[in-house]
Amino acid sequence: MNDEYFIKIALDLAKQGAGFTSPNPMVGAVIVKDNEIVGKGFHEAVGKAHAEVNAINDAGLLANGATLYVTLEPCNHIGRTPPCTKKIASSGIKRVVVAMRDPNPHVQGGGIDFLTDIGVEVATGICENEAKKQNEIFIKYINTKRPFVIVKCAATLDGQIATMTGDSKWVTSEKSREYVHGLRHLCDAIMVGIDTVKRDDPALTTRLDGINCLDPVRVILDTHLSIPEEAKILGMDSNSKTIIITGDSFSKDKKKRIEKKGALVVNSPVKNALIDLDHLIDYLGSINITSLLIEGGGKVIASAFKAKIVDKINFFYGSKILGGNNGKSICNGLGPALMKDSIQIQDIDVTLFGNDVLIEGYVWPKRNMQCPK
Amino acid sequence: MNDEYFIKIALDLAKQGAGFTSPNPMVGAVIVKDNEIVGKGFHEAVGKAHAEVNAINDAGLLANGATLYVTLEPCNHIGRTPPCTKKIASSGIKRVVVAMRDPNPHVQGGGIDFLTDIGVEVATGICENEAKKQNEIFIKYINTKRPFVIVKCAATLDGQIATMTGDSKWVTSEKSREYVHGLRHLCDAIMVGIDTVKRDDPALTTRLDGINCLDPVRVILDTHLSIPEEAKILGMDSNSKTIIITGDSFSKDKKKRIEKKGALVVNSPVKNALIDLDHLIDYLGSINITSLLIEGGGKVIASAFKAKIVDKINFFYGSKILGGNNGKSICNGLGPALMKDSIQIQDIDVTLFGNDVLIEGYVWPKRNMQCPK
Repeated sequence: MNDEYFIKIALDLAKQGAGFTSPNPMVGAVIVKDNEIVGKGFHEAVGKAHAEVNAINDAGLLANGATLYVTLEPCNHIGRTPPCTKKIASSGIKRVVVAMRDPNPHVQGGGIDFLTDIGVEVATGICENEAKKQNEIFIKYINTKRPFVIVKCAATLDGQIATMTGDSKWVTSEKSREYVHGLRHLCDAIMVGIDTVKRDDPALTTRLDGINCLDPVRVILDTHLSIPEEAKILGMDSNSKTIIITGDSFSKDKKKRIEKKGALVVNSPVKNALIDLDHLIDYLGSINITSLLIEGGGKVIASAFKAKIVDKINFFYGSKILGGNNGKSICNGLGPALMKDSIQIQDIDVTLFGNDVLIEGYVWPKRNMQCPK
Repeated sequence: MNDEYFIKIALDLAKQGAGFTSPNPMVGAVIVKDNEIVGKGFHEAVGKAHAEVNAINDAGLLANGATLYVTLEPCNHIGRTPPCTKKIASSGIKRVVVAMRDPNPHVQGGGIDFLTDIGVEVATGICENEAKKQNEIFIKYINTKRPFVIVKCAATLDGQIATMTGDSKWVTSEKSREYVHGLRHLCDAIMVGIDTVKRDDPALTTRLDGINCLDPVRVILDTHLSIPEEAKILGMDSNSKTIIITGDSFSKDKKKRIEKKGALVVNSPVKNALIDLDHLIDYLGSINITSLLIEGGGKVIASAFKAKIVDKINFFYGSKILGGNNGKSICNGLGPALMKDSIQIQDIDVTLFGNDVLIEGYVWPKRNMQCPK
């Protein structure tokens, strides 16, 4: 049992905070003495105690002389909570193992410097890549103030997300759809086009067994405010808002009626007759949306790639073939003339859900996602 | 080291015959004495010695009292070679472990019965599924006299096999393309539509480093015999034939000129203005084509699924997104109105080639591929 072994346990603990910590990162911590775990903790939700504090409290007096394994550099500043470095110092911990440094470009003199100065032994970079992947949303947002954007779709093996009649029930299995609810839980907001609202009348909520989920903020692209007033997302009991993004030509009366139902109607710049997605991403970042899940349809997905706002793809392929090209394609728009001008995807990862295949990958080159240190 | 361990070695040996044994199966054999391998063999090519014979010859006198592991039930009839059962009996082998029984529905009293009768201990069904998968081509052909049909395509993650201009260089990486040459080597024939010939002017040969490959028979669907007379496949130095499948309306003079170049022009029934693929598959079976690799384009692939001739898919997804639906789709034709009427694919398997993803699967329900016993 080495440093890697215990950091991996801390990374697993951190995961339990997924969906509850935004705009904070997920963090997990383990305290080990004589090769035995004597304390565990994770950051449970924004505003609640940090992982290190929970782990040290869990260990009690056993923390004295022990090693702390933590997935992110302990904070050294007063935020919503007092600095963790002070807690570590007073606990008597002798050694700290950190997976990744604080990616916040504005943090001066982080926790590692402080701990080293007071004589605590510090090791960093253990399972750094796993830690960075776990907090890719936090890393992008803290560096750019723009949300991390994931495009999700569910297509047949021949690349169709619906038949010619718009039928898409179901492309993938229940297992895959459950995973998607996990994605919704993870993300601050979800975005679809008005065509999807009109065709499917979706709820866009998060439904996960046994978890008291937060629904994502629902963002609807609706340039001319043509949303049906009886749409499900306008009359729902949800712990999250619906935001309708419109262009500059729409009925002011309809706007008022929709706002009365509790939705926000936001006027946004238009580019080539469509909502300017690059500008929209800045806006969503400004209202503390750190992550955005784009769920379609094909027009919105194609526009998102064209606007270069996409960071990651989550493409599900159901184990079926439609057999024609008259259905709805994953991307609905104009592609380039040459294959070499297509969008490059890297770091491909594959997961099987029964007979469904999930392909994950990152748009290349990655944009503003590097840690500064 | 148990029976499974040695049968797996025999299965690996069998693979070395891939592409050379048709219409015979691939077979591998290992002889084990006191837990040590004393002989190895595989069926190297049609007309050459069977795996058991090679392994017994390799073992020499050490075969006496040993166990024979073989991936397919030893033959008990005189074919191109004398029956293997006789060779086993005279070698003094005491025990035979067989992965799968002979799938030939016409074999009466197979090798297992004979061996049991003369007092050899026989075990069967060890790694049976792996053995059946390895010889899926042989199993289908011996049961139906129709070739096992694989559809291969290379698409972007959004399901496009080429851009609007037809450019497809390259969707996938060199590694994936090398795998495809392995597929061509494995299959007796390769089929494309005339559009692919006109657009890409492909050679459709097998190019694999260090292997003296057999090219597949090239089958071209060309209802009106519109093939350019300067097409590469008509003037090639190849160890295999080109067969042009035409309908009933074509120029007799052109046919003569093409036949002079060494290609075969075969007149075939037409259904809904296209070559009747179901009938064509019978014809290909009748000329000893046990396996057919369909490589496109989209029209041929869609027609093949519609005609229900496809057994297996090999879909490659390159790590890129075209971003539009104006390219060429995997299937070019009319799909059903409802998702539930799409073609079901089962037994999905995924392989990564760098950042490319290969999804393999079987059209469900499987047709005539069961072993009778």
